[in-house]
Amino acid sequence: MTEDALKYEVLASDGAARRGRLHTAHGTAETPAFMTVGTAGTVKGLLPENVADTGAEIVLGNTYHLMLRPTAERIAELGGLHKFMNWNKPILTDSGGYQVMSLSELRKITEEGVAFRSHLDGSRHNLTPERAMDIQCLLDSNITMVLDECTPYPAEPDVAADSMRRSMRWAQRCKDAFIKRPGYGLFGIVQGSVYPDLRQESAEALQEIGFDGYAVGGLAVGEGQEVMFEVLDATMPHLTRERPRYLMGVGKPSDIVGAVQRGIDMFDCVLPTRSGRTGQGFTRRGPINIRNARHQADPRPIDPDCGCKTCSSYSRAYVHHLVKANEMLGPILLTIHNLHYYQELMAGLRDAIEKGELDAFVSAFHRQQAAGDLPPL
Amino acid sequence: MTEDALKYEVLASDGAARRGRLHTAHGTAETPAFMTVGTAGTVKGLLPENVADTGAEIVLGNTYHLMLRPTAERIAELGGLHKFMNWNKPILTDSGGYQVMSLSELRKITEEGVAFRSHLDGSRHNLTPERAMDIQCLLDSNITMVLDECTPYPAEPDVAADSMRRSMRWAQRCKDAFIKRPGYGLFGIVQGSVYPDLRQESAEALQEIGFDGYAVGGLAVGEGQEVMFEVLDATMPHLTRERPRYLMGVGKPSDIVGAVQRGIDMFDCVLPTRSGRTGQGFTRRGPINIRNARHQADPRPIDPDCGCKTCSSYSRAYVHHLVKANEMLGPILLTIHNLHYYQELMAGLRDAIEKGELDAFVSAFHRQQAAGDLPPL
Ligand SMILES: [Zn+2]
Ligand SMILES: [Zn+2]
Repeated sequence: MTEDALKYEVLASDGAARRGRLHTAHGTAETPAFMTVGTAGTVKGLLPENVADTGAEIVLGNTYHLMLRPTAERIAELGGLHKFMNWNKPILTDSGGYQVMSLSELRKITEEGVAFRSHLDGSRHNLTPERAMDIQCLLDSNITMVLDECTPYPAEPDVAADSMRRSMRWAQRCKDAFIKRPGYGLFGIVQGSVYPDLRQESAEALQEIGFDGYAVGGLAVGEGQEVMFEVLDATMPHLTRERPRYLMGVGKPSDIVGAVQRGIDMFDCVLPTRSGRTGQGFTRRGPINIRNARHQADPRPIDPDCGCKTCSSYSRAYVHHLVKANEMLGPILLTIHNLHYYQELMAGLRDAIEKGELDAFVSAFHRQQAAGDLPPL
Repeated sequence: MTEDALKYEVLASDGAARRGRLHTAHGTAETPAFMTVGTAGTVKGLLPENVADTGAEIVLGNTYHLMLRPTAERIAELGGLHKFMNWNKPILTDSGGYQVMSLSELRKITEEGVAFRSHLDGSRHNLTPERAMDIQCLLDSNITMVLDECTPYPAEPDVAADSMRRSMRWAQRCKDAFIKRPGYGLFGIVQGSVYPDLRQESAEALQEIGFDGYAVGGLAVGEGQEVMFEVLDATMPHLTRERPRYLMGVGKPSDIVGAVQRGIDMFDCVLPTRSGRTGQGFTRRGPINIRNARHQADPRPIDPDCGCKTCSSYSRAYVHHLVKANEMLGPILLTIHNLHYYQELMAGLRDAIEKGELDAFVSAFHRQQAAGDLPPL
């Protein structure tokens, strides 16, 4: 274990849920935390101060995108990712494995690693566990993720087992290659598809190696919320409570609420940013599509209970107008709102755990979400 | 004249150039002023606080775009354009005439006005002098522009004269229809193509009617800087020094400098915003194209002498990366810089006029612009 590298405190708990604090070389993050996705060195459309204004404390960068353009070496020359993108708070980077499989061309997995061609220019690249550590070190990422294979879904048990066991061997190579620095840490990733015995085997193998945190990977790949929660129920008992636990790529607000109840501390998802670019706004009464004509003359904010910059100063009618007119400010205002909505949800969950009122919070959340949008004026 | 409507003070002068202050119902603006274009109720890609941070005091809205979508009536219901777009400082709106001619379909000009079809959905519309006043009143524009025809360039003298004289009859109808309110004003527009006698006739006709300010229209339509300055030289002596004078749609930094020397007080142009979206950055050493590979590893800001948000915190390498990756933040950062560059240029001109040092300022400006970009590191 490298507990000195990345300090994590559990401040309170309520059932399996925990309220914690993560300390990094670039400051602290309160957990449960939602990490904002900043794929290519930018949270799409937002200045970093707007990202911070939403309450975000950790931004996630994508190794796959950054290694291809502008390259990790270029970012290192320019002083690292924090300086490059003007984000002086914690950064987590994925290992690139997931996006190599979903975006690149002619990819080939061997015991050594993944060989692939860039989707940008067709150039050849190799991503090995050692290279994934090297790249994330060049980026100066506070939280480095091991290289793994996100097992496709569905997968037969023997395929899932082989894939998971190779990821565990890669995890050991990542641990061996990772350079320890105070305030920087390395997370392992549990795989094993939907099979409880494989998830348990993976969790135990990772803890044998010893990491600064443990992610649950291979979910949010089409299995649905019920199966996802079943996998969490089968996995979480096998993960130490001493270290932060991160559910990768999740999710919808109700996914996050259910996962926090099961003891997850960290999340990331493109949903608030991506759906902000397609006209969707999350609200306490469920999601709305701002392109809908019902909003065209509505002077009310997207969510009257939201304290974000968008809801403080702009009407649904204005955001509707911007989105219909393909104005950049439409996605910008929706993204600001959606990220703020997610951060307020996390703050509500943290507060409820501290007070030992998580069940009541969750009931109220589901009741509100089912209410449907505001009635017309 | 409606001098009580829109107070204008000349604070200092240097040759023909003036340093002034315009008072509106939504605050003051220092002149010479560069007005930021906010076509469809938004300065593309920027939050209003970012626009204000650049030093902008007046935003320009386009009647043509807004009357079609979301409509002036909708904006009026929602409290006017200031509230709609969250810009509580002065707003100037054009009359729609220029864009009807450049964007709409099946347009037909008669003595009554312009009939046209929307470029958005083919719907039929009529824009008359009276309707142009009505729309701009609904928008709650601080500075309303008369409906005119921007005479095409080049135009034979008789065509230019007929077009100008109809615009003068429309100007009278606009004056008759304009509703006086304290802190709101109406500007006439001088036409007459490149013909000094027509420009003089137009200037005199407008002053006979009496407006709160006088715009010079029909320029920046392909005639070139030399001809534009000749037209200004022929026009400015016939415009009162008591009222602000606005050169519409201009222009490049050197156009603005030359026009200020000739007594122009107000400008608007899409150049800093539009070129920010295509990778061009204005600098004290002339424009650069940030897409150029020479910037890909350059840790320096776009303009080391610029105090804007972009130049304070981001490298050329980062902006290059964003633009190459088609990230929205690239145009955003360039637009912030370009608008700030323009506003710093205006502040420099105002300061030089106050000190009686305009000639020296202009010489230094041209010397710097000719220097060429920073040498490679
Ligand atoms: Zn909001
Ligand atoms: Zn700048």
